Amino acid sequence: MLNCSSRTAEAVLWDYRITFAAKFNTMSLLIVGTMAFDALETPFGKVDKIIGGSATYAAWAASNFTQPIKQVSIVGGDFPDSEINELKARGVAFEGVEVVPDGKSFFWSGRYHLDMNTRDTLVTELNVLAQFDPKLPDSYQDSGFVMLGNLAPAVQISVINQLQKRPKLIIMDTMNFWMDVAMDELKQALKMVDLLMVNDSEARQLSGEHSIVKAAKKIQAMGPKYLIIKKGEHGALLFYGDQIFSAPALPLEDVFDPTGAGDTFAGGFIGYLTRINDISFESMKAAVIIGSAMASYCVEKFGPNRLKELTAEDIDNRVKEFIALSNFEIR
Amino acid sequence: MLNCSSRTAEAVLWDYRITFAAKFNTMSLLIVGTMAFDALETPFGKVDKIIGGSATYAAWAASNFTQPIKQVSIVGGDFPDSEINELKARGVAFEGVEVVPDGKSFFWSGRYHLDMNTRDTLVTELNVLAQFDPKLPDSYQDSGFVMLGNLAPAVQISVINQLQKRPKLIIMDTMNFWMDVAMDELKQALKMVDLLMVNDSEARQLSGEHSIVKAAKKIQAMGPKYLIIKKGEHGALLFYGDQIFSAPALPLEDVFDPTGAGDTFAGGFIGYLTRINDISFESMKAAVIIGSAMASYCVEKFGPNRLKELTAEDIDNRVKEFIALSNFEIR
Repeated sequence: MLNCSSRTAEAVLWDYRITFAAKFNTMSLLIVGTMAFDALETPFGKVDKIIGGSATYAAWAASNFTQPIKQVSIVGGDFPDSEINELKARGVAFEGVEVVPDGKSFFWSGRYHLDMNTRDTLVTELNVLAQFDPKLPDSYQDSGFVMLGNLAPAVQISVINQLQKRPKLIIMDTMNFWMDVAMDELKQALKMVDLLMVNDSEARQLSGEHSIVKAAKKIQAMGPKYLIIKKGEHGALLFYGDQIFSAPALPLEDVFDPTGAGDTFAGGFIGYLTRINDISFESMKAAVIIGSAMASYCVEKFGPNRLKELTAEDIDNRVKEFIALSNFEIR
Repeated sequence: MLNCSSRTAEAVLWDYRITFAAKFNTMSLLIVGTMAFDALETPFGKVDKIIGGSATYAAWAASNFTQPIKQVSIVGGDFPDSEINELKARGVAFEGVEVVPDGKSFFWSGRYHLDMNTRDTLVTELNVLAQFDPKLPDSYQDSGFVMLGNLAPAVQISVINQLQKRPKLIIMDTMNFWMDVAMDELKQALKMVDLLMVNDSEARQLSGEHSIVKAAKKIQAMGPKYLIIKKGEHGALLFYGDQIFSAPALPLEDVFDPTGAGDTFAGGFIGYLTRINDISFESMKAAVIIGSAMASYCVEKFGPNRLKELTAEDIDNRVKEFIALSNFEIR
């Protein structure tokens, strides 16, 4: 009998609470990325100014699994104290977040198409991000797990070079823009990380291959042993050597706002791995499911609003939905 | 601990051999569909005339799991005896296959685009299919499982009406063409079947909904309790009430020829269910994996050529690949 069963009946609720996690957490998580404002237009509505940025979403997601989190970012004097205090209360350290009092925070504005898979960028104002040259505080040197959000590859490289001890796991995100304007630096960064996380069209652009399997092989040959290719409503693929894991996406009636889903996925993924302090392929598979569960919540409301209200039970329930979704037994 | 493990290490090879299946097979499988010639052009090559048709692919796939198969189709005098004899040797009964000696078999010609997800129909010659008005032989009345391949809904309805005893499971395929020209009859057919199998764009057209989850609800309300939405390289979704199962597709370096993949999926799906004589949601989930495994072989060569050479071990190995692909454990 080939069997893939969930044993949900006998399952003890997995305890996501930080009090529990803290017991076996010996390493901390470093997150580098943007903290920003977004203006968003989706078929469901419009917001003129909402908190955004890759490091914001990642920290909200990851802090369900591991604390403290060492945040590295840059904001202007316009970034609300209330948002910073909410994250501090979740165990997010701000020593590495530069505040430029008379500067403005990074601003992005976009409009999603009806299918929610494509979007137009309306405005990109770099503001303080243009001068982002992160300096790692000494207190961040104990980071065993590192997430480099989508940033200029030169910034990602600079952070890696400042780490005195090689972390257990470095993951990075990137986007098509950097392939267009900074491919050489991007390739250099790829040689320095363990895992790259991109969407399917970015994987195709980076590799020049249409077949996702061929694209994955080429990208793995560029440096990262692990590769995650995100396919939106079609889930995600994790590649390691010749092994592949396919995670479903939760079929949703409506995707309210896809902004930050990828960063939330990344935060859930690496937050879980930091918590269990393990980077085996088996653990990464579970982490992809955790990341997918977090992302499926993220898209339910504008910005990080849904993430802010999640309980441990919510997360447990969503993870169980993923198990039910992919669980089968062949007799 | 939430657990979804494969137990592959301790798994005994599942015995797909028909000798074994025959032991507990009490019902037989009825397949209604086309047996035809195709001319195909893909980025990998070209064939001018190769055996095709939904019932051909379905019978090749299903006969790995259950025999006898009661085939219903129509062919011209040009359909090769050798092909018929090969299928007869696989336990496929031809009493219900009408041969029109001076007629020509249905012919379809298509060209696939580079992404293999879209294709242009170059030629459709109905030939004998235009006069297809199947009469079920008495020997077919014991069919507990029925697959209605993509045909005019009126033909599908006629077959159901000829069955003196309601089968345990009736599944049907259809396509956008029938939604354009015979929507009323299609809706009538949908009320008579247990399961509909369509691809994602067909599900959207049939329901008028872009969201796949909303589309599924609307289609289920039209009649079929079960719904399978095929997403090509992104796998398949099985819907039943409020439950959803998401099956991955095997990530392939190359898809050589996608022709017949959907019919092969259907044949593997219902062949397996006939074999185990069970239509619970749990069994259907397993059947979706079996169908996906068969389809992943189908696309490796032109026409049904790859299906013809498969061994029980090949199928076992591919099913194991699907388990490895979707198996995870959260701790």
